[in-house]
Amino acid sequence: MPLPKTTTPPPRIQILEVTPQVDCGRFPVKRIVGDRVDVHARIFRDGHDVLGAAVRYRPPGASRWLELPLEPLPNDHWTGVFVVDRPGVWTFRVEAWTDRVASYREELRRKVEAGQDDLAGELSEGAALLGRETLTVEEALAAPAGDRHATASSPNYCVDVDRELARFGAWYELFPRSWGGFEGVRTLLPRFAELGFDVLYFPPVHPIGRTNRKGRNNALAAKPSDPGSPWAIGSDEGGHEAVDPELGTVAEFERLVAEAREHGIEIAIDFAIQCSPDHPWLKEHPEWFYRRPDGTLKYAENPPKRYQDIYSVNFDCEDWKGLWAALRDIVLLWVERGVTVFRVDNPHTKPVPFWEWLIAEVRHDHPDVVFLAEAFTRPAMMTTLAKAGFTQSYTYFTWKNTRWELLEFMGQLLDWSQYYRPNAFVNTPDILHEYLQRGGPAAFEVRLVLAATLSPSYGIYSGFEHFENVPVREGSEEYLDSEKYELKRRALDGPLLPLVAKLNHARREIPALQRLDDVTFLETENEQLFGFLKRDRGSDVVVVVNLDPVAAQRGVCIVPVSTGLPPAYRVRDLLTDQEWTWRIGRNFVELPPGKSHVLEVLR
Amino acid sequence: MPLPKTTTPPPRIQILEVTPQVDCGRFPVKRIVGDRVDVHARIFRDGHDVLGAAVRYRPPGASRWLELPLEPLPNDHWTGVFVVDRPGVWTFRVEAWTDRVASYREELRRKVEAGQDDLAGELSEGAALLGRETLTVEEALAAPAGDRHATASSPNYCVDVDRELARFGAWYELFPRSWGGFEGVRTLLPRFAELGFDVLYFPPVHPIGRTNRKGRNNALAAKPSDPGSPWAIGSDEGGHEAVDPELGTVAEFERLVAEAREHGIEIAIDFAIQCSPDHPWLKEHPEWFYRRPDGTLKYAENPPKRYQDIYSVNFDCEDWKGLWAALRDIVLLWVERGVTVFRVDNPHTKPVPFWEWLIAEVRHDHPDVVFLAEAFTRPAMMTTLAKAGFTQSYTYFTWKNTRWELLEFMGQLLDWSQYYRPNAFVNTPDILHEYLQRGGPAAFEVRLVLAATLSPSYGIYSGFEHFENVPVREGSEEYLDSEKYELKRRALDGPLLPLVAKLNHARREIPALQRLDDVTFLETENEQLFGFLKRDRGSDVVVVVNLDPVAAQRGVCIVPVSTGLPPAYRVRDLLTDQEWTWRIGRNFVELPPGKSHVLEVLR
Repeated sequence: MPLPKTTTPPPRIQILEVTPQVDCGRFPVKRIVGDRVDVHARIFRDGHDVLGAAVRYRPPGASRWLELPLEPLPNDHWTGVFVVDRPGVWTFRVEAWTDRVASYREELRRKVEAGQDDLAGELSEGAALLGRETLTVEEALAAPAGDRHATASSPNYCVDVDRELARFGAWYELFPRSWGGFEGVRTLLPRFAELGFDVLYFPPVHPIGRTNRKGRNNALAAKPSDPGSPWAIGSDEGGHEAVDPELGTVAEFERLVAEAREHGIEIAIDFAIQCSPDHPWLKEHPEWFYRRPDGTLKYAENPPKRYQDIYSVNFDCEDWKGLWAALRDIVLLWVERGVTVFRVDNPHTKPVPFWEWLIAEVRHDHPDVVFLAEAFTRPAMMTTLAKAGFTQSYTYFTWKNTRWELLEFMGQLLDWSQYYRPNAFVNTPDILHEYLQRGGPAAFEVRLVLAATLSPSYGIYSGFEHFENVPVREGSEEYLDSEKYELKRRALDGPLLPLVAKLNHARREIPALQRLDDVTFLETENEQLFGFLKRDRGSDVVVVVNLDPVAAQRGVCIVPVSTGLPPAYRVRDLLTDQEWTWRIGRNFVELPPGKSHVLEVLR
Repeated sequence: MPLPKTTTPPPRIQILEVTPQVDCGRFPVKRIVGDRVDVHARIFRDGHDVLGAAVRYRPPGASRWLELPLEPLPNDHWTGVFVVDRPGVWTFRVEAWTDRVASYREELRRKVEAGQDDLAGELSEGAALLGRETLTVEEALAAPAGDRHATASSPNYCVDVDRELARFGAWYELFPRSWGGFEGVRTLLPRFAELGFDVLYFPPVHPIGRTNRKGRNNALAAKPSDPGSPWAIGSDEGGHEAVDPELGTVAEFERLVAEAREHGIEIAIDFAIQCSPDHPWLKEHPEWFYRRPDGTLKYAENPPKRYQDIYSVNFDCEDWKGLWAALRDIVLLWVERGVTVFRVDNPHTKPVPFWEWLIAEVRHDHPDVVFLAEAFTRPAMMTTLAKAGFTQSYTYFTWKNTRWELLEFMGQLLDWSQYYRPNAFVNTPDILHEYLQRGGPAAFEVRLVLAATLSPSYGIYSGFEHFENVPVREGSEEYLDSEKYELKRRALDGPLLPLVAKLNHARREIPALQRLDDVTFLETENEQLFGFLKRDRGSDVVVVVNLDPVAAQRGVCIVPVSTGLPPAYRVRDLLTDQEWTWRIGRNFVELPPGKSHVLEVLR
C-alpha cells in the first residue's frame, strides 16, 4: 500500500454518520418549502485540539454556498439546522477544522490554572501563531478564536424540496366524460372548492382507441356505443398530446385548468405510457414497440391477463433515447398547458432510471410539478420509485382495515418518511375493498375519517360519497358496471359530502392534520377502537375511530403523561361540535358503528 | 438533466441494501478464517421478468473472481453465503441479471395453463431467443434457463479476514525486567503454556532514556538505581529498533519468540510512538518533532499533566512521509524478528489515516499480524480505529461492574461486532479499579470469570493473580509502587492461577466461549446475580456470577423456552466439576461472595 500522493497528510479530522441521508447519499431526502433540515454528524480527531464545524448548503441553481455553524454535543456528536425556503434540489455537506488559536488558548489556560509559570516557549509559540512580535499571557488568553486549519469535508448530500401540495392535499378523482366533459367540470369548480378539494384528478383525457376497444364490464367486444377505457390511449384523432373530442378542446381544457387555479384547485392528469392499436406512434415509431420475429406486435399482458386494447413501449429498443425524449416532451407539453400535477399509471412496470431522469428533467425548470406514483407493488420497488423522485405514492391503505393492520401500515410509512410521501386513496376505479362491499355507509365513514386524519394527502374516487359498493362479482375488487368502460351520469350530491367538507376544512385549519410524522397511537383497550394523537405547531388532535361498521363499541382512550398535555383539558369534536373535558390517563369512549371522534384540544 | 451518455439504457435491475458492510463500504467488515460471510441484498426490476443473482468474491491477492448463487426470499430479498478460508482483505459484490429464457418459459407456461392456444407468435419469439429454426410448445417449456442478460452490479465491498487469535485468546502482560529478562521469561514458558495463555505481552523492550527519567511512583527526579518507565523509549543504546540491555540481546529475544511459539505462545510487544529525550531520532531527525519558535522541543503533555520524559512526533511535519515510512520499517523489523502481535500504545493520539495505512501496509505481506489498540477514549474514535484496521481493542470493561453496566457494555460490543473485537483486560499497569481495591480476592474472582467467559479475548496484568489492590493514593486507579517505574521480583505463584488455568482450558474446550455474539442474557431476579447463556457449534454454557464480593446471594436463573434447550438437562460446573439437573424456566441459584457457576450443558 503506497504512501498517499498528496503533499500534505490526509485530514486527521473524521466526519462520520452524517444525517439526513438516504442509501448513503445515493438518493436525496425529501422536504417541503419552509422545513428545517436538522443536520447531524460525528466529528472528531486524534489528540486534544479544539475543533470547529459547519454545515455548508447550496440552494437549487445557486452558485454560492451558504454556511451555518454546527454545535458540539457530548460524545463527538455535532448538530445544526438550515431551512429550505424554495423548491428544487438543495445540496449540503459538513465541514470541520482545527481551531489552532482556540486550541492554543485552551492549553495555555490549563497551564496557567495549574500554576505553571515557565511559559516563555508557549508565548513564543503563540506569537508566531498570531503573527505578532511579542505576546503576554493576558494577550494570549484573549486572542480571538476562529482559526480554520486543515479543514475536512464530508461528501455532498441532496435534499429534494417540494411545495406544500407534495405533502398535504385532498384529492378527488373523476372521469370528465361522466360530468359533461371539461365544461361540465368547470361549472362545478365553485362547489369542489366549497368541499375543500385541492386536486381534481382525471384519468387519461386523450383520444381512445377503437381497435380491440373494451366493452362494458371489460367485455372483449365493445358495442358501437361503448366509449372504451381512457387508458387505451390514441386514435386517428391523436395520441398523448391530444384531447378526446368527447371531453372538449385543448382550449377548453386550458380554460378549465386556469379557472380551477382561481378556485385554489389544481387539475391532475394521468400519465400512462401505453398506446392503443390506433395510436399514431405505432405508425410513426414502430421501433418503439415490442415486435415478434414473425412481425406481430405484442400487446400488453400479464398472463393469463391480456390487455388487447393496449401496447407497451419497449424501453430496451435501439432508439430508447428517442423514446425517453418523446415521453419527456409529452409531459412538458402538458406543463405548458398549465398542468402541475401528474398521476403516473403503473410506474413499477417501467425502468426506475427512466423515472429518475424524467422527473429530474421536468423539475429542473418546473420544480413545482408533482408526480404521484400509482405504484401498487412490493415495498422495495414502491419505496425505490419514491427515492428516484416521485413526489407522492399510492399506498396499501385500502387493504389495511384492522387496528393491527393500520398500526403496521403506519409504522412502515414512518420508517419511510425521509423519502416516501403517502397519498391515501380510500378507493380507486380498480379497488373496491371487501370492507366497503360489506360494511355499508358506516364502513365508508370509517375509511374516510382514517384517510383524512392519518394521511396529510388523501383522495376519493367519485362514487365513494354515494356509498357505491357492488363488485362485478363475488371476491372481486372491481366495480360492477365500472366507469372505466362506460359512461355514467355523475352529480356532486353524495350523502357523504358534508362529512368530506367538514374534514377538509378541519385539515386546513389544524396544522397537526397536515403532517404524517407527528402521530402517537393511543391504547383503547378495545381492538375495534383505533385511537391516535397528532400534534404540530401548537395544535393537538385526538382521533378515535370505531372500526366496527356494525356494532357500537365502548372502551377508553388513554392519553399518556408523556404527551405533556395538562391533567385536564377541553376538547371539541370537529365532526359534531360537542365539547368535553378530557384528562391525562383514561377517557371513556363509546361510539356508534363506524363513528369517530376527531377532537381538537382547546387552549 | 441530459440523457445518459451510454449507448445501452442504464440497468433496469436495482441492487440495494447489500450487507454485510460498514459505513456504506468505507471500511471492511471483519471475519475470522473459516467464517461464513452471509450476503444479503434487495434485488428487483420493473415488470415481471425472472431474475438471477450471485455473489462474486475474490480472495486476497487473487486475480480471478469466484461466484456463488444468491437465492430469492419473499419481498425481493436475496441471500447467499461464501466462506473465507485465508487471512487478508477479501472483496465481494452482488450481481443480478435478467434470465430471458426463464422469463419466456414462465410467460408461456402461464398462457398454456390458461388454455391459450394461439401461440405461433410466442413460439417464433422463443425460437429466436433460443437460436433455433422452429420450436414446439414442449421444447419451449423444456428450454434450459440460465441466460444472463443486462447484468447489474453492486459496488465492491471488503471483508478483512484475520486468523483465530484475532478473536480468541488469553493474554498475560508482564514486565520482562521483573522476571529476569528474556531468559528468565523463557524458562517459564512451559508453565505459561500449562496455564493456558496464548499471548505474553511485554511493555516496550527498548533502551530507556536517562534525561528526565521518572522515579518511583512517577517522581519527577529518578534515583540512579531507578530503571525508569519503559515507555520513555530510546537512549544512547538505541531507539525503537534496539532492545534494553537490561533485558538481554536481540538474539535472546528472537530465541524467546521462537521457543514460545513451540509452546503455542506468542510474544506481543508494545508499539509506542514516542521518544525519550535521549532517543537517537531527536538528533537524526529533529524535523520529526514539535519545536517552538524559540527552538525548544515540546515534550508530551496534556495540561496540567506533563510527560517530561517523552517527546511526541509531529505527524504534521514537512517530512511526514519519511516519518510514516520509518514507523512502518520499525514494525516490519520486529515482524522479521518473529513478532506477530503488537499492542499499540495510545493510538487515539495519532492520526487515523496513518493507522489505516500502516496496518494495511504491514498486513499486505503479513496478514497474520495482530494489532491491539490501547484506545481508552470516546466511542467514536475507539470504533473508528477498529474500522481503520486494528484487529482488537481494549475496552471499557474495567469500569463496568454492575449488572446494568455490564448489560449496556455488552449491548454496545454486540452493536459493533461487524468491525470491533474486544480484548477484555481485567487490569493494566494504569488501571486498578476501585471495585478491586475494595472487594478483596472475591472481587478479583468475579472480574476474572466475567472477562474469561463474556469476551473471547481477555487479559490480566501480573499482580492480579496475587490480588494486588493498593492504589498510590485514595481515589486513584494507579498502583502504589507501580511496576512502571521500578523493578519487581515476580514469580508465577499467585493464588488465583489455578482458577485462571481452569478457565483457560474450559475456553479452549468449549466453542461457545470462543465467540462474543452468541450470548443471551438471563433473568436472575437479583441485581447482584449476572447470568447469561452462550452457545456455539453445539456447545451451551450457562454462566451465573455473584457480583457481590461481600455477601452470598440467592436468586434464580431463568432459562427461556426460546433457547430450545430440553425441558430438563444435566449441567456440569466447569469450576467445581459438580453436576446438577437444570430445567427450562426457573433454576434456583445460591452463590457465596464473588463465586460463579460456569455450567456446561451435557448432551
